[in-house]
Amino acid sequence: MSTTINVPPGLRNVVVTETTLGDVRGDEGFYHYRQYSAIDLAKSKTLEDVWFLMFDGHLPTAAERDRFIAELAPLRVLPEEVRAVLPAIATAGPAFNPLAGLRTALSLLAAVRTLPPLWDADPARRKADAMLVCAVTPTILAALYRLRGGQQPLEPRADLGAAANWLYLVTGTEPSAVEATAIEHYLVATVDHGFNASTFTARVIASTGADVVAAVAGAIGAFSGPLHGGAPDRALASLDEIGSPDRIDSWVREKVSAGDRIMGFGHAVYWTEDPRSLMLRDIARGLGGDLVDFATTVEQRIVDVLAELKPGRNLYANVEFYAGVVMELCGLPRAMFTPTFAVSRVIGWSANILEQSMDSKIIRPIATYVGPQPPVPVP
Amino acid sequence: MSTTINVPPGLRNVVVTETTLGDVRGDEGFYHYRQYSAIDLAKSKTLEDVWFLMFDGHLPTAAERDRFIAELAPLRVLPEEVRAVLPAIATAGPAFNPLAGLRTALSLLAAVRTLPPLWDADPARRKADAMLVCAVTPTILAALYRLRGGQQPLEPRADLGAAANWLYLVTGTEPSAVEATAIEHYLVATVDHGFNASTFTARVIASTGADVVAAVAGAIGAFSGPLHGGAPDRALASLDEIGSPDRIDSWVREKVSAGDRIMGFGHAVYWTEDPRSLMLRDIARGLGGDLVDFATTVEQRIVDVLAELKPGRNLYANVEFYAGVVMELCGLPRAMFTPTFAVSRVIGWSANILEQSMDSKIIRPIATYVGPQPPVPVP
Repeated sequence: MSTTINVPPGLRNVVVTETTLGDVRGDEGFYHYRQYSAIDLAKSKTLEDVWFLMFDGHLPTAAERDRFIAELAPLRVLPEEVRAVLPAIATAGPAFNPLAGLRTALSLLAAVRTLPPLWDADPARRKADAMLVCAVTPTILAALYRLRGGQQPLEPRADLGAAANWLYLVTGTEPSAVEATAIEHYLVATVDHGFNASTFTARVIASTGADVVAAVAGAIGAFSGPLHGGAPDRALASLDEIGSPDRIDSWVREKVSAGDRIMGFGHAVYWTEDPRSLMLRDIARGLGGDLVDFATTVEQRIVDVLAELKPGRNLYANVEFYAGVVMELCGLPRAMFTPTFAVSRVIGWSANILEQSMDSKIIRPIATYVGPQPPVPVP
Repeated sequence: MSTTINVPPGLRNVVVTETTLGDVRGDEGFYHYRQYSAIDLAKSKTLEDVWFLMFDGHLPTAAERDRFIAELAPLRVLPEEVRAVLPAIATAGPAFNPLAGLRTALSLLAAVRTLPPLWDADPARRKADAMLVCAVTPTILAALYRLRGGQQPLEPRADLGAAANWLYLVTGTEPSAVEATAIEHYLVATVDHGFNASTFTARVIASTGADVVAAVAGAIGAFSGPLHGGAPDRALASLDEIGSPDRIDSWVREKVSAGDRIMGFGHAVYWTEDPRSLMLRDIARGLGGDLVDFATTVEQRIVDVLAELKPGRNLYANVEFYAGVVMELCGLPRAMFTPTFAVSRVIGWSANILEQSMDSKIIRPIATYVGPQPPVPVP
């Protein structure tokens, strides 16, 4: 039998593959897409530009950008067979679950569009399928939200960029330039972030040669896990719970002594301030208002109390904290905070799926059996 | 920055966790569930018995078995909100895709039944959700098949065991005892098989604390990948392609020289004959007929030719090869071969999900960035 290789629990720090998509330098508070700082991209490029960069390896020329946007427009429109089932998906169950709904609708889309396994598809087809999944995701999520609320879904608008279109589809109102820019910064900054659990899930499934939706559906499942992180509504719920500045200390101390996590603080990878949080704080301050002032006060106090209660842990605000504030100020309903994250992250998953599909090696570790020694005779 | 750990590609032989569910000893041609030989279980126990064993850690007493079966009966019945959407799922797209359909229907079920994240659920709730998913899977798959063919779905029969019920739901005819036993042996033998890619996927998703369906939906995706293996219809398609004994040699040689894989032969883990294949060959011979005689001839000849063309590779028939023959002889349509595998494997996935949910550590490896060194200024 082959020699087995023991590594730290959870495959921590174990290198599973190489990538040219990007990385996170947790000790430097820096992350990048391809060779560019992700934050620099977020501050200067559109979501479509960065989507192109992730899929094609370079930023688009003006002509490439125009062609890319023209390609996207029809892909945003829901196929009729999916549209017909969306009301049933949107209203299923007593609680609205947009991520489960997205997974259901994309899973149906895979059958409707006969997505071939990655293993059987040429690179152009793989990319076309990934483009479709990323383009239609905001349309599905916004339609589910509106249907759940008893409203008719809106048609994607080809004259709006990805961020403005997303806000329009959800709220029914064309956003201001300031709002669209704020959400665009957020979307670009959350396209990818190293080898998180959902991205890894997408790559494991892609490594079996399954189709793009099979891999994205798995990623959505991992993304929905409470340990994955990335639920900006939880951080905002904490602000509500705290209510006023004089309650911050007691709230944090109660949480910590109960062993609860403080949502919106701490990150598996960063030992510094989260660069996404820094950018989003600036954006929130630009938008201004009482909520921003309160959030800033809460953030500073929580960081101080955590430094006292958990010395050496370097717990700072993560991407969730100010993301919730920014989304609230841009008019997104809380039910759509995590879906907004999914709108951008599906592009990162897809880029990872496309990269994984160039590798013919299945990802398949092993487990060590530690139960009673077999074979025991069957009684 | 933490030291990174380099391991072989695809995490081969890397131990990701401990398990008490079972293991495969590839060099001995042996695999087990808990402390029992899986093949011995397949030859002497029902699927419900082994399902109980995987979920509860021991074989059921008579009273436990009765209670378990009584619990299962209502769980097999489709909730109305899922039933209403099944026709649309079944008829989606130009080609019938039962695995995508199962994933879509289960994903909807998660919303209908408000499945809580594993992280938030107590062990009893986790197990109840896993029971539901495993019990309803055959009902969904058979209903999709019948609806696609323009037939009405049948209601599960509480008086039939899992294997007989499956055959009845698909074919509309109560199977003979011989047929039910043959399929029951197959189902028990395919409940679990070490840390294959779909099982690993289920555990990665479960490690984020997501719900049971999130993990199973991901596993279905990995399972659908051509590199995962486990598609008994492909092996039978090879028998059709070969057509007659005098064409075996030329067929194999052409495939091998074209670099194609021979479906139904070779396995990532076994260096011996696949114990599942040995059992299924015996079952096939017991059922008898021309197809079995032809399959036996083809198997022997392919093994010989592969030994000549790929010396030292030890390529034997795997679980796919005789599984297809057995299913065909038991009256299952080919479109339902891989779904039959899913009917049993969902129990293995679920047992792994329940085991993973006892571990609070997220599975999250890393990737090495190998692109141009950042930060390059954004143009």
